Amino acid sequence: MFCRLFASLSLAITVITASLLSSSTARLHADEGMYLFNDLPRELLKERYDFDPSQKWADDLRLASVRFNSGGSGSFVSSNGLVLTNHHVASDTLQKVSTKERNLIRDGFLANSFDEEIKAPDLELNVLIEIVDVTQRIDEAVTNKTDAEAAAKQRQAAFNAIESESFDKTGLRSDVVTLFGGAQYHLYRYKKYTDVRLVWAPETAAAFFGGDADNFEYPRYNLDATLMRVYENDKPAVIDHFLEWSSKPVAENDLVFVSGHPGRTQRIFTVEALEYLRDHRLPFVLDYLRRKEILLQQYRLESEEAARRGRDELFGIQNARKAYTGMLAGLQDPQTIADRRRVQDRLIAAAGANPDLNPLTQAWQEIAEIQQEKAAQLSRSVSLRSDVFQYALSILLLAQEDQKPNADRLAEYTDASRDSLLTRLTSEAPLYDDLQRIELADEIALLLERRGMSDPLVVEVLAGRSPQQVAAEIIDGTSVDEFAKRRELIEGEPDLIFGSDDPAMRLARLMEPEYRRLRLIDDGLSEREKQAYAKIARVTTEIEGTTGYPDATFTLRLAFGTVKGYPENGSFVKPTTDFAGAFEHAAEHQGQEDFELPESWMRAKQEGKIDLSTQLNFVCTADIIGGNSGSPVVDRGGALVGLIFDGNIQSLTSDYLYTDQQARAVSVSGVGIRQALEAIYNAKDLADQLGK
Amino acid sequence: MFCRLFASLSLAITVITASLLSSSTARLHADEGMYLFNDLPRELLKERYDFDPSQKWADDLRLASVRFNSGGSGSFVSSNGLVLTNHHVASDTLQKVSTKERNLIRDGFLANSFDEEIKAPDLELNVLIEIVDVTQRIDEAVTNKTDAEAAAKQRQAAFNAIESESFDKTGLRSDVVTLFGGAQYHLYRYKKYTDVRLVWAPETAAAFFGGDADNFEYPRYNLDATLMRVYENDKPAVIDHFLEWSSKPVAENDLVFVSGHPGRTQRIFTVEALEYLRDHRLPFVLDYLRRKEILLQQYRLESEEAARRGRDELFGIQNARKAYTGMLAGLQDPQTIADRRRVQDRLIAAAGANPDLNPLTQAWQEIAEIQQEKAAQLSRSVSLRSDVFQYALSILLLAQEDQKPNADRLAEYTDASRDSLLTRLTSEAPLYDDLQRIELADEIALLLERRGMSDPLVVEVLAGRSPQQVAAEIIDGTSVDEFAKRRELIEGEPDLIFGSDDPAMRLARLMEPEYRRLRLIDDGLSEREKQAYAKIARVTTEIEGTTGYPDATFTLRLAFGTVKGYPENGSFVKPTTDFAGAFEHAAEHQGQEDFELPESWMRAKQEGKIDLSTQLNFVCTADIIGGNSGSPVVDRGGALVGLIFDGNIQSLTSDYLYTDQQARAVSVSGVGIRQALEAIYNAKDLADQLGK
Repeated sequence: MFCRLFASLSLAITVITASLLSSSTARLHADEGMYLFNDLPRELLKERYDFDPSQKWADDLRLASVRFNSGGSGSFVSSNGLVLTNHHVASDTLQKVSTKERNLIRDGFLANSFDEEIKAPDLELNVLIEIVDVTQRIDEAVTNKTDAEAAAKQRQAAFNAIESESFDKTGLRSDVVTLFGGAQYHLYRYKKYTDVRLVWAPETAAAFFGGDADNFEYPRYNLDATLMRVYENDKPAVIDHFLEWSSKPVAENDLVFVSGHPGRTQRIFTVEALEYLRDHRLPFVLDYLRRKEILLQQYRLESEEAARRGRDELFGIQNARKAYTGMLAGLQDPQTIADRRRVQDRLIAAAGANPDLNPLTQAWQEIAEIQQEKAAQLSRSVSLRSDVFQYALSILLLAQEDQKPNADRLAEYTDASRDSLLTRLTSEAPLYDDLQRIELADEIALLLERRGMSDPLVVEVLAGRSPQQVAAEIIDGTSVDEFAKRRELIEGEPDLIFGSDDPAMRLARLMEPEYRRLRLIDDGLSEREKQAYAKIARVTTEIEGTTGYPDATFTLRLAFGTVKGYPENGSFVKPTTDFAGAFEHAAEHQGQEDFELPESWMRAKQEGKIDLSTQLNFVCTADIIGGNSGSPVVDRGGALVGLIFDGNIQSLTSDYLYTDQQARAVSVSGVGIRQALEAIYNAKDLADQLGK
Repeated sequence: MFCRLFASLSLAITVITASLLSSSTARLHADEGMYLFNDLPRELLKERYDFDPSQKWADDLRLASVRFNSGGSGSFVSSNGLVLTNHHVASDTLQKVSTKERNLIRDGFLANSFDEEIKAPDLELNVLIEIVDVTQRIDEAVTNKTDAEAAAKQRQAAFNAIESESFDKTGLRSDVVTLFGGAQYHLYRYKKYTDVRLVWAPETAAAFFGGDADNFEYPRYNLDATLMRVYENDKPAVIDHFLEWSSKPVAENDLVFVSGHPGRTQRIFTVEALEYLRDHRLPFVLDYLRRKEILLQQYRLESEEAARRGRDELFGIQNARKAYTGMLAGLQDPQTIADRRRVQDRLIAAAGANPDLNPLTQAWQEIAEIQQEKAAQLSRSVSLRSDVFQYALSILLLAQEDQKPNADRLAEYTDASRDSLLTRLTSEAPLYDDLQRIELADEIALLLERRGMSDPLVVEVLAGRSPQQVAAEIIDGTSVDEFAKRRELIEGEPDLIFGSDDPAMRLARLMEPEYRRLRLIDDGLSEREKQAYAKIARVTTEIEGTTGYPDATFTLRLAFGTVKGYPENGSFVKPTTDFAGAFEHAAEHQGQEDFELPESWMRAKQEGKIDLSTQLNFVCTADIIGGNSGSPVVDRGGALVGLIFDGNIQSLTSDYLYTDQQARAVSVSGVGIRQALEAIYNAKDLADQLGK
């Protein structure tokens, strides 16, 4: 499953923010590229595929593309607001609206009427309306050239001002996006939907067929699809731009396009930045993920209800762990770095020989030095990965930031960001005391393991108690876990927050100064990286030619490729699978829990309702990454033919390295989804809405 | 499950060898103590329980007690060689004699005749015949007072000489054991059994009922028992000293004794040594265990056969992970260290005021300094935890050590150790290429993560290849994974080994110099710790009175206590459970895989064969630890009433801290085992042999 790699880590693990950088077309491999919608690779498409997209083609596709702020992608597929995405993108919502008696994540769901559709507690969907280049205004605002932390503040102030102005003027969500590692800044304006309702989801057994074993593998047979619907004024939204639903399966060599929101890539990291990932960051994150994975596994063993409560978080963590494991393995192959070093050395040598560019070559050294500082910073974080703590800290920061002028605030607390923040902070999604207690205790234990028992902050947090005792006292005593109480705090006088004796708020106040101190350091490092990568971007463009595409930033991109099999272990993997294959795969793995197809499938097959030759999954060469989950795959005519849900195991290095030798994007076939709705889920009415 | 904590880590994680130290009776809690059989707490037993064991009582119990060199305990329970131990002690053997077609570890086993009993491929059982004090001879041999590494060599040479002499003279396995952290050295002489056959084992579903969730919990309902039989000259051995089998269940407050082999305790670690465990060693080991746990889980998802192959190793790792997690949590409670520091400070102050003892107080500082060095050493190990690698390294070291005089050899390679070593090296237990490849690749990846990609040894090992490639080439190319080939190498000319181009042997040769270099450092640190703890032992004895018991050393000890419930979360946990409770527990957890009782139990219940009121498990206050698994529990008359298999969760801190507030040892009841054999497993003939 692709996107969760991004979503599950965005909460508290420090994000790799830096260094998104241009890749020149001269060095592009085959179908490499995640293109900006305002800078599509028209020549390349014309030349390679004799395809010349019209502006309308591109606009329609853009306006039918949807971003899930929980960390994935989707698309409008009907005039009455239906949104197609992955089951594993929707699973966050499925988890939150499930109860002990109603396990939607396991059992699936079908609303038989609008009335039965279930509102998601905290989803926000975004549709990209407009892009405006604001590079010049940002660059002019950053006048301090010597102090990185001061420069970072100036840059943030410019972001905040532009976003607020735009929001005031248009009413649209407005985000300034850093592209090409700081060489360009674009303002993205989004229409927002926050009334999003669940319409249909299959069982996990169908969506995640093959489980963790088959995750990131191919061939696959997964119905990793879910339908939601956006509402406005309590009615299904009327959508002008939605995708047609192709009635044809894809065929080998078909040209296809993916319009979605790749999360983050590090394609043009310097060798030293990749070494930092390999030697520090990825091993560190993997130790953390494995720790959480075991913790949640243990918790889930306690009872069926505990298993239900911990399900979605565990699966997100397992997914990230598997993705990062593949990413690290690629970096641990000495050839990977050796190849990159050759390219880098050539570039530096060429720049060194050019008197204009020569001074810029110190940027590589600067990046190398920053990596050392990042490594030292890695284990200092105090941003505990606990829902209760994160709520408390956010509420505290919100109250503090509200007292500053908008320009001076942290990015998440500006006027322009406020609505999205409040959606998140007042989510009605349930929190479970038992799980909160275990997770908070482990985070506190981790804090003391990383900072040491004699660290003054640790001493204050523990106050002579064990991490388990501290967590129990906080979870038992707090009311931050109730959404109504959070709303009261947010809407009340700030002194209620500053003086609160709620134990979670007290913990947040204890940690806040150190949180800010560390964030300042991180922002300073990030600023220095931006400046260095901007230089490297200039060198690269000068030496190697035109700009291609910037590294991914969880903003809308267009990728393209062809439906194509690949060689593996001496045989050839065919690009498409069908329903018959799913039943065969289940039979081959009889007795293994994750390979049991749901009853609905077995019954439909027995009753002869399924056309077993219908296409179910396919692979293509398009350049995607975590965050692209749920992206529509469209044909030359712009009609939906598939739904991205994964990359194969060979694609796990594509954070920093695209190849089309074996790496492939994996999709559910559009015809497969339609057949499942009609033949398996008795949802003919719903199927009839698709593409209309 | 208790013992595996010890067994599963003994292979390649550096063992906590140091610092086994006396606890004076003045500071003993209630039933604390793991007593030497040549220094039983007669006065204490007399005083507290009015019990005065005769020499015959003690000798009979000692001679009926059995050590499993795979890491557990057991006892003779019949004149014809039956040995009772835990299923989880025997599971190592059950795993090794299973095949794809015959999954004994899952399905259980019953031999209906001697002929059907299955020989274990590499088990060695030891019975303690004699203890001789050799302290003076060891102390006199260590003349170098300034160079710790040289002193360690002298001490090892004395060990080797004493062991060889004893072996030559008696033919018995002879081990010098370091007690009281180096204050005493005893020579232990064992009778050895290497023809050990499997007689009966229940299904894992009965033995490990409740799975990882219930592991280390109480109440329990586990039939964690297995019967094996020792043979001599291909006939069941005739055993003079075996335990009677009591026909009575235990009752609250009964005095009971545990005779077994606790693995390792750190009861009198200094505060700084405990801090080293808390801040360095335990977090380090837990990261490692979680990594292996996830790796094996992933492997086992591949197929039913993979699940079978990886089962025992995974369960051992999970067990250790859970045990260490509890141990670390105890140390992370600031009260634990604060209490210990008060005691330590008092002791140092008292010694400081005594002119004789004052110079010895620098030992605490010495221990503190050694911990720093150990922390730095922690991640340098090159002893990859891979069966193939360990075989190759051992074969290489054996060939090298054989060329030295016996006195100069490493401990495992002396004349006295040779038989046990060969049993292990020529084991016919199968190795599976797919699993070996995955594990070796991960160990090599870990090596480069710990030592860095530019470490010269890492560069040599990789030679431009990825860890996966290196592992694949080694496992595909080696014949060290075949026991016949290992035997050939061991019995052939050493030049076959030194010049072998087998890729596993080449890897071993590459690592060997660094392995020796690190071992020398470890041995030097260990020697310095011994000398310092010997001083601390003297101080403690002088200040606080007589010697109690030395820390555990995986040698035979006697513990005692009473059958006793305990308070938990406001209610009271009763000390015994019965078969009825097992069926209720299963019903409460319906739908959870690990809580399904096997068919044999359900059938026997349906047929009314089981007396549901029969005692199944019980707890007592005896002081046990990992390694005690499989220990017999006997009554005042020396008759078997139970079989230790676990400690409860509150006992996980007992490595360094005994309490009887809540901590309990958990046993299978003798009457429960007998009933299961008769009513569930149709093994009346076998049951009739017990105690006769």
